[in-house]
Amino acid sequence: MPTQKTIKNWVYNFDQLPNLISEVGTDYDILKSLLGGKGCFLADMTKAGLPVPPGLTITTQACNYYSENQKFPEGMLDEILASLKKVEQKTGKTFGGKINPLLVSCRSGAKFSMPGMMDTVLNLGLNEEIVNVMIAETNNPKFVWNCYRRLIQMFGSVVLNIPDEPFEEHITAVRKARGVDSDVKLEAADWQQLAHEFLKIIESFGQTFPADPFKQLEMAIQAVFASWNGKRAIDYRRAEGIPDDLGTAVNIQTMIFGNINDNCGTGVAFTRNPATGVDEFFGDFLVNAQGEDVVAGIRNPQKISELANQWPEIYQQLLDVRGKLESYYRDMQDIEFTIVNGKLWMLQTRTGKRTAKAAIKMAVDMAEANLITKQQAMMRVTPKQIDMMLHPQFSEEEKEAAKKQGRLLATGVNASPGAACGVLVFDADKTEEFGKTDLGTSLPEAIEKITAVAEKLGIKLQANESILKIKYTPDGKIKSINPSVIMIRPETKPDDVHGMLAASAILTALGGATSHAAVVSRGFGIPCVCGCDALRINLSSRTVEVGDKIFSEGDLVSLDGGDGQVFSGALTLSLPDFAEQKDLQKLLLWADEICADPKARGDKPGLQVWTNADQPADAQIAKSFGAQGIGLCRTEHMFFAPERLPIVQKMILASDAAARQPYLDQLLPEQQKDFEGLFEVMDNLPVIIRLIDPPMHEFLPPLTELLVEVEKLKIADPKNELGEKQKLLAAVTQMHEANPMMGLRGIRLGLMMPELIAMQVKAIMQAACSVAKKGITVKPEIMIPLVSHINELKKTRETLAKVAKEVVANSNVQIAYKFGTMIEIPRAALTAGEIATEAEFFSFGTNDLTQMTFGFSRDDAERGFLLRYVEEGILPESPFQTIDTQGVGRLIELAVSEGRKTNPNLEIGICGEHGGDPASITFCHTAGLNYVSCSPFRVPVARLAAAQAVLNAAK
Amino acid sequence: MPTQKTIKNWVYNFDQLPNLISEVGTDYDILKSLLGGKGCFLADMTKAGLPVPPGLTITTQACNYYSENQKFPEGMLDEILASLKKVEQKTGKTFGGKINPLLVSCRSGAKFSMPGMMDTVLNLGLNEEIVNVMIAETNNPKFVWNCYRRLIQMFGSVVLNIPDEPFEEHITAVRKARGVDSDVKLEAADWQQLAHEFLKIIESFGQTFPADPFKQLEMAIQAVFASWNGKRAIDYRRAEGIPDDLGTAVNIQTMIFGNINDNCGTGVAFTRNPATGVDEFFGDFLVNAQGEDVVAGIRNPQKISELANQWPEIYQQLLDVRGKLESYYRDMQDIEFTIVNGKLWMLQTRTGKRTAKAAIKMAVDMAEANLITKQQAMMRVTPKQIDMMLHPQFSEEEKEAAKKQGRLLATGVNASPGAACGVLVFDADKTEEFGKTDLGTSLPEAIEKITAVAEKLGIKLQANESILKIKYTPDGKIKSINPSVIMIRPETKPDDVHGMLAASAILTALGGATSHAAVVSRGFGIPCVCGCDALRINLSSRTVEVGDKIFSEGDLVSLDGGDGQVFSGALTLSLPDFAEQKDLQKLLLWADEICADPKARGDKPGLQVWTNADQPADAQIAKSFGAQGIGLCRTEHMFFAPERLPIVQKMILASDAAARQPYLDQLLPEQQKDFEGLFEVMDNLPVIIRLIDPPMHEFLPPLTELLVEVEKLKIADPKNELGEKQKLLAAVTQMHEANPMMGLRGIRLGLMMPELIAMQVKAIMQAACSVAKKGITVKPEIMIPLVSHINELKKTRETLAKVAKEVVANSNVQIAYKFGTMIEIPRAALTAGEIATEAEFFSFGTNDLTQMTFGFSRDDAERGFLLRYVEEGILPESPFQTIDTQGVGRLIELAVSEGRKTNPNLEIGICGEHGGDPASITFCHTAGLNYVSCSPFRVPVARLAAAQAVLNAAK
Repeated sequence: MPTQKTIKNWVYNFDQLPNLISEVGTDYDILKSLLGGKGCFLADMTKAGLPVPPGLTITTQACNYYSENQKFPEGMLDEILASLKKVEQKTGKTFGGKINPLLVSCRSGAKFSMPGMMDTVLNLGLNEEIVNVMIAETNNPKFVWNCYRRLIQMFGSVVLNIPDEPFEEHITAVRKARGVDSDVKLEAADWQQLAHEFLKIIESFGQTFPADPFKQLEMAIQAVFASWNGKRAIDYRRAEGIPDDLGTAVNIQTMIFGNINDNCGTGVAFTRNPATGVDEFFGDFLVNAQGEDVVAGIRNPQKISELANQWPEIYQQLLDVRGKLESYYRDMQDIEFTIVNGKLWMLQTRTGKRTAKAAIKMAVDMAEANLITKQQAMMRVTPKQIDMMLHPQFSEEEKEAAKKQGRLLATGVNASPGAACGVLVFDADKTEEFGKTDLGTSLPEAIEKITAVAEKLGIKLQANESILKIKYTPDGKIKSINPSVIMIRPETKPDDVHGMLAASAILTALGGATSHAAVVSRGFGIPCVCGCDALRINLSSRTVEVGDKIFSEGDLVSLDGGDGQVFSGALTLSLPDFAEQKDLQKLLLWADEICADPKARGDKPGLQVWTNADQPADAQIAKSFGAQGIGLCRTEHMFFAPERLPIVQKMILASDAAARQPYLDQLLPEQQKDFEGLFEVMDNLPVIIRLIDPPMHEFLPPLTELLVEVEKLKIADPKNELGEKQKLLAAVTQMHEANPMMGLRGIRLGLMMPELIAMQVKAIMQAACSVAKKGITVKPEIMIPLVSHINELKKTRETLAKVAKEVVANSNVQIAYKFGTMIEIPRAALTAGEIATEAEFFSFGTNDLTQMTFGFSRDDAERGFLLRYVEEGILPESPFQTIDTQGVGRLIELAVSEGRKTNPNLEIGICGEHGGDPASITFCHTAGLNYVSCSPFRVPVARLAAAQAVLNAAK
Repeated sequence: MPTQKTIKNWVYNFDQLPNLISEVGTDYDILKSLLGGKGCFLADMTKAGLPVPPGLTITTQACNYYSENQKFPEGMLDEILASLKKVEQKTGKTFGGKINPLLVSCRSGAKFSMPGMMDTVLNLGLNEEIVNVMIAETNNPKFVWNCYRRLIQMFGSVVLNIPDEPFEEHITAVRKARGVDSDVKLEAADWQQLAHEFLKIIESFGQTFPADPFKQLEMAIQAVFASWNGKRAIDYRRAEGIPDDLGTAVNIQTMIFGNINDNCGTGVAFTRNPATGVDEFFGDFLVNAQGEDVVAGIRNPQKISELANQWPEIYQQLLDVRGKLESYYRDMQDIEFTIVNGKLWMLQTRTGKRTAKAAIKMAVDMAEANLITKQQAMMRVTPKQIDMMLHPQFSEEEKEAAKKQGRLLATGVNASPGAACGVLVFDADKTEEFGKTDLGTSLPEAIEKITAVAEKLGIKLQANESILKIKYTPDGKIKSINPSVIMIRPETKPDDVHGMLAASAILTALGGATSHAAVVSRGFGIPCVCGCDALRINLSSRTVEVGDKIFSEGDLVSLDGGDGQVFSGALTLSLPDFAEQKDLQKLLLWADEICADPKARGDKPGLQVWTNADQPADAQIAKSFGAQGIGLCRTEHMFFAPERLPIVQKMILASDAAARQPYLDQLLPEQQKDFEGLFEVMDNLPVIIRLIDPPMHEFLPPLTELLVEVEKLKIADPKNELGEKQKLLAAVTQMHEANPMMGLRGIRLGLMMPELIAMQVKAIMQAACSVAKKGITVKPEIMIPLVSHINELKKTRETLAKVAKEVVANSNVQIAYKFGTMIEIPRAALTAGEIATEAEFFSFGTNDLTQMTFGFSRDDAERGFLLRYVEEGILPESPFQTIDTQGVGRLIELAVSEGRKTNPNLEIGICGEHGGDPASITFCHTAGLNYVSCSPFRVPVARLAAAQAVLNAAK
């Protein structure tokens, strides 16, 4: 952004938008970058003829000039005065005038919303003399003195940098003296007294409150400009990736008061229901009140529909505004309005925040009503919102009900999304110890056990299902049960991370969206509410006070990291049923269409979404979520089945290929059955099966365990020289590897034990033939893992192709099958052109590729230094969450382009965990992949992300 | 090569070289590819007017025509007959004639020497009738019948493919019948009888020996052509990388006999001494003998100098020949000559084989005599020869003396260079068990122990120092002693490899230069002699018979893999003194000059050779070998010193930075002393010091060991709950990593424990300042290991630069120091452009870079699959020996080019083991590196390899 003026003025009145448009055109992005979001919205509404209190906007260019020169640009003040004159003309009021004085607000408004990060001063233009004029005119001294004390207080803290505490202490003291519990019960004299005390507070800090309204205005503007470079604002921009050189605009607007008398009022409303997305006017209002009264929740507001009875004309006027705003912005708006002596004033409009469900419904509804295009609809919903629709959450009804019961304890910063119920624990060590306790897989037993464990740890709790963290297998059985813990701390530190990782959610009293708790939680997908300053935590008594309630360790609370709300007791977590989410399904079908549309995807193949599934049950779920193939079936999981493991172990311990064969023969029909199930589910869809990958010692007991056992046996019976255990120990010692991740596994194992993978291929092809005979179309693709050199692939493929050919020849069916390889070793990517001559498909194993490209052993790194790296900003995020485009991504791009050069028909996908990460999906589309493969529950998220990638690339 | 004739004739007489030159020019490469090496040499000598027995060469084009069409080209036989006529005219003899008959030899002769791979037939032109003519003319029936039986035998085996055994059996039978031990003692009648028996042998195989001399010649030529595509020849070409389409020429030459009477003789000579390189005429001759008699060693030949007395004129003639040949070929020649009735005939000249020492001396001498350029001199010596000059070897004198004592047992294929003495062991398991026995570090104790161990294993031996494999530290102390085993097998198989790796050398009876034993030995640098068919190995009695000697397991033998000789008993291994090798030093100085010469190195920086040295003693050796800097000083070795390890362990186990500091304070002065020593040695040369790299748990006892110990302690004293060992076990368990190679080490450790590397930098800079005060120029470069992201480097460098600056500021000296990084992680190479903005130098750690690029954990791979990969041809060689240019090399090239783009002054080198490998050094030059750094003993090798890389690139 230039620090010199490139447009005609430093200042534009709200009604001068047409002038600015004549200068810079209608590009909304440019207008917003000059006037800021708020300034633009106000000018828009003014232009649309809506009743907006007159005002003016100082452009971001003035702010940028100030940032560079630490002074106002020449002429700016004159322009402000001239614009203010126009405001005076419109309102018939005079700024600093002795009759009908004009009061104004001064607010920041940057291009991108930075909530709470910059400064605002209200009621500018008041002084002792004008107070008296206004009292005379309004006959409402309580209102006027309150306005004045508020100006002094805000000016003191915002402009003069005086801490807020002394002001608040004085108010508390007066409240006490009057024996009242709320500010609204204070009277005119009280506010007058406070106003005078406030002036003295300012003097006690060596400062003076300027009585001159123009001086007030000038200083307020300067303070707003300066706040752009305040620490809070800079930190926020860093975290959100907002450039530093945008600057903020400043809006000077006529003050409007809804609390003068009963012919006044104020309200907030949404043009559609922000919780459900239903197309209805939704909101609240209060008679004789200011906006903050609605928010504070001290008086119960009325539903907006009741306005139709109270002030029917105003209600009609508002409905009209609602229509105009929606058709202008083509999105749901969040508006603030005030009624002054029966006249409606629009104070603000902005794109309304909404729940995931509402976002989806509104996007689909608006697209179907041709208000927006389908493409716009797809961009209106975030992948995170889709994700929330597929994970357990508190329903809006549930939360509303809890609020009515007074169970909403506090609202903090919504730092990391997700809902959780659990018991409070006040330190990391105990959180880890308690949270990691294995409670078995039976509910009644788990409840019994949790009580015992808690008692041992000194945690008092009431055991019930709400405090259990239950994980299920894809077919609905309980996989594991642990205690559900909400770790509560004033703030978290690196020492607390072991506890955080064991917690269901994190709750802190201090720190914002960029605090340690927030960063770590987001990084590891743990729900978190932070900076919840209503909490008064006492670590020594292990209690927390909220308002008049006290909670102890072991008490049950619920929190929603998506909106920052914290409730006492349990809220029901419910999993939305995908089949019933018709809007979502519609949206995702549009997404699939866009990805397949040659016009939209341009020269890219356009991403399909496949799934990683080892078992028919997983495949079934993924298919119901819209997966178009299996990108990764890990065959080793089949080896771990309890009834097979003993055979697998004997196979491994066999002395040579001949001795191994009988065990392979036993495993063959079992493997075949596994594959038959998958093929049946995935009728007519591709199924990529990866040959066995992990090192063989993973199927044997760990060396450390055996060492101790054998030592015990030796001491117990020193003569027993070569027991079974000792033989096993010898074998395991022999197989032990210094770095098993880079040892004898994948294709290396296949080359050393060709009979093992030959059995797998036989099982795959026999399964394919037997299923094909039932009339099902089978598309098996055999994937060879861990290739680093073309010769590995060549040799293996030769052997396996023979096996496959033989099986098919012996059956009476035709099967189209493919051989391909993982690209998960840097060398494979670097020599992809050569490797593609021996492969019909590539699948990027970005987990291993990331490990080797960074030289990070994931297990060790995540337990060790990786966290500190993210905390200290050495890495922007874990490369295991989002593809590192610079390093790993460069290898992928290279492999795609060189692989396609030698083999234009190459099918290319990704099957690492990144396949379900929206940012990585965007990268995959740009890199020209054919599909991403992710876990079943990520499939809907990936479908939307893929479409957004296509749409963004097309821009 | 075209299979049609592109030149005028299929056949050229030796004296027709000028004709051929008029057709194709003087390019020696083209002439050689048409006439073959032997044909070219013969034509050369003829042209130079030397007395060459007349003959003709059939070009390689005829062979290629034959290979494609399985018949002679039209007109070729006519050309042969015409050329033969010219030979008859020159010699006055007639082929197949009844008076003065001409006998000829028929020999293959390809462009590149393929010793023993193709066929030869001598004495063509004899039959029963002509035998009688010759007997009449020579009056020497013994000589003539022997010629005849020899023709039949060679024709039978070479042309008619009859096995040699029946012929040899008949000779043995006759020898026995006559009661003589040598063929020379057989008489005319014996040879006559054998000739007739041989004809019958041929008939017994259903074949006939053709009596027609022209038929003999035709069939012999055909056999030589066919031998080009024989299995032996093809295998040899594969192994040596010789193209298949070159074809062989065939030389038909007048037979000359030095064994007709005492006015005849024969000899072989070298134009310079092939053992020492001294410029003296060197060779042997025998009166009344054939060439093979000189080689067989049955009669003692006379020194060539004695020829001056015997036949002074001939001697003078030979000296003249010697001069002519050397000035023509500008290299040492190996010649064969025969004297027939007082006339000298030159039979062959070729470039002479030479010892490493001779190669160096001759190259330097010839360059100084302006016979060749310095550049040619540098190309005359191989890096392997330099290597041999720096490793223990048997001196030529030692070997000559052993031969005189009759201790030369056999000569096999020189499959893998290096000399070794050791005891014979007949199988791999025992070789491994015995060879790996740790015999401590005291010689007397080792001798005591080896006897005991051998007895236990059933190996009878006489223990003395010759059977010990002793390794020394750089400062001359004994590092380890193991038994020295020579594993002897008929041939080796993959199952034997564990034994091979524990052996000092390998000896086999079967298999050539491409056999399993040869490939594996070369791959792992183990001396090997294979295909030693004089050995008759009896595995059941565990003995080997050689001639009339029998050796048992445990007997001592010596072998030299460089020349294939095997001796009984011990030969002394001696290490040549580099300081005394003036010729080598001269050559290497020229090498350094070439590398630094802007004209020669072109747009490349030209490689310097630096060294990897951790201690002053290493640095001193390397400097004496010509190292121009230290490219890698590993500081962790300093932590392992026995007196420091306990402090290091306490430092590691300390709970936090504050608790760690006292131990770091203790280590600081020790580290400083280490560095002072290095800086003093390396006055004015750069010293790159790498900050600590390995994971901390490497300094603690292994987990497995502790587990067993603690288990024992627990059982012994169940109450002892938290002993020291148990605490240690807990710490080690906590630090245990799944893949330590990719875990918390290198810069990651530095970022977690900044105080540790701050101590190191303080030690480095304090040492630098203190040494600089003595007037020594200190050039420290601080190297940060394992960087994968620029931010790691940025953050670390900021901290460390502060420490360094402070130390220098506190001293009164100026120190120029650098900060740089290892490039050993793929991501670092992929983002080198960015990283170079924070580094003053790059050093490629190709060990780790190869590990991660391939995903090979070196320890696991070499013990596991890597060997099989090389055996099965999946990889051409271990990528840990020679840089994999396609994968790892691509990353290096990318990093160099992108690094220099953002930082043109970047100093770039390599410090992995590849820095001492000639093929990798060639790559490093091409990639544009500034230096290679290798172990001290590889420095001279690397200096030559670097120069050769420059010279080859300039071509």
